[in-house]
Amino acid sequence: MADEATEAIRRLKYAYFRLLDTKHFAELGELFVEDGTTAYEGGVHRQHGREAIVEFLTTSLGDPAIVHLHNGHHPEIEIHGDGTATGTWYLEDKVLIPAYDLVIQGTALYDDTYVLVNGEWKIKHTGYQRIFEERRKFTTGELISFTSRFQPEKAG
Amino acid sequence: MADEATEAIRRLKYAYFRLLDTKHFAELGELFVEDGTTAYEGGVHRQHGREAIVEFLTTSLGDPAIVHLHNGHHPEIEIHGDGTATGTWYLEDKVLIPAYDLVIQGTALYDDTYVLVNGEWKIKHTGYQRIFEERRKFTTGELISFTSRFQPEKAG
Amino acid sequence: MADEATEAIRRLKYAYFRLLDTKHFAELGELFVEDGTTAYEGGVHRQHGREAIVEFLTTSLGDPAIVHLHNGHHPEIEIHGDGTATGTWYLEDKVLIPAYDLVIQGTALYDDTYVLVNGEWKIKHTGYQRIFEERRKFTTGELISFTSRFQPEKAG
Repeated sequence: MADEATEAIRRLKYAYFRLLDTKHFAELGELFVEDGTTAYEGGVHRQHGREAIVEFLTTSLGDPAIVHLHNGHHPEIEIHGDGTATGTWYLEDKVLIPAYDLVIQGTALYDDTYVLVNGEWKIKHTGYQRIFEERRKFTTGELISFTSRFQPEKAG
Repeated sequence: MADEATEAIRRLKYAYFRLLDTKHFAELGELFVEDGTTAYEGGVHRQHGREAIVEFLTTSLGDPAIVHLHNGHHPEIEIHGDGTATGTWYLEDKVLIPAYDLVIQGTALYDDTYVLVNGEWKIKHTGYQRIFEERRKFTTGELISFTSRFQPEKAG
Repeated sequence: MADEATEAIRRLKYAYFRLLDTKHFAELGELFVEDGTTAYEGGVHRQHGREAIVEFLTTSLGDPAIVHLHNGHHPEIEIHGDGTATGTWYLEDKVLIPAYDLVIQGTALYDDTYVLVNGEWKIKHTGYQRIFEERRKFTTGELISFTSRFQPEKAG
């Protein structure tokens, strides 16, 4: 049972990343419970409710000229007896914004919670804390700024 | 049973990537059924039959001066009752071609089909559609061209 | 049973990478058996015993100004009947050393052995062989050197 739930939650998150990077934000919203919440970028970007999440993603990433990679690695899923679960994931992401000659790339650790609704696992909360983030010029690769959780001050 | 098949298919694909990036193309061919097919790069590169697949890979990537990374993430595997299965994967790839001062890197979504032959899962078809592709100078990192599924025209 | 062991070993390795990149080296040491061994970089860096492993990692990566990504993909785990297991993984890594204007990045294949101790899987041995390694300037992305298992001589 635990194995089946673990695989279902992995699949949920894989669908999330696939729908995110192909910009199917409304379908992505369906992976959350109605009152799902997010805390992206260590809580800098917080949304409450499916509608707000979809709107935030559409506003941030809806432009077809912005192209992105979000890969979730190393799933550590804990199934609780009461139809809830928690999960840690290792994110690698890269957002290409040619119009601003900008690439934002880095890594983060997700802390998610999931809930079983009518036999289907849904995202209750997703959020991550960065390990590091680089900003580089898209055309040349030159460093613009660098931050990490170990030394948050900017450099470059 | 479904779980066992899912894990077997994940292992099949992991072996594929390991054999690809270590240039063991003949062994990689054994992961396909005899009449397996490919449609790499959204169908630009199509091969029919194990022999043609191995020959294509040997010609494209056999040169030891060409070095490559192909990582498959986010397996979404569907096992069908009739000894067939389908799978979606999120590819991140990077091909380094120092002789041409070129790096080709990007992401894609795989659509594969698998078939159970004498108790062993084999690849029946593999193909992918790019999300984006960057070409950069290997020595400097400078952008040469950029395409995405959202805006296919070249830039840079 | 095999499935449960496979998942436990995946989790062990995922914890390893999480603790490595968040610099929790003492906790990481607990994932090894007391007499665990390593052979990083094809055996260039060998440690024997948990204490030596933790000391090596602390010395190499303890500086908070050094920031790193280690992602393990494509787990191919073999469970043996006698409480031991072996595993192959595909590593992608990136080490950012701003003080030396240096990024070291590349890929490798892990060959690990695991052992079951009081119902818990532990790392007995971990080691990897590089596929390729690039060294680039952190600030500009310019290539400094490049090596691969196919052509070990340096270039650039």
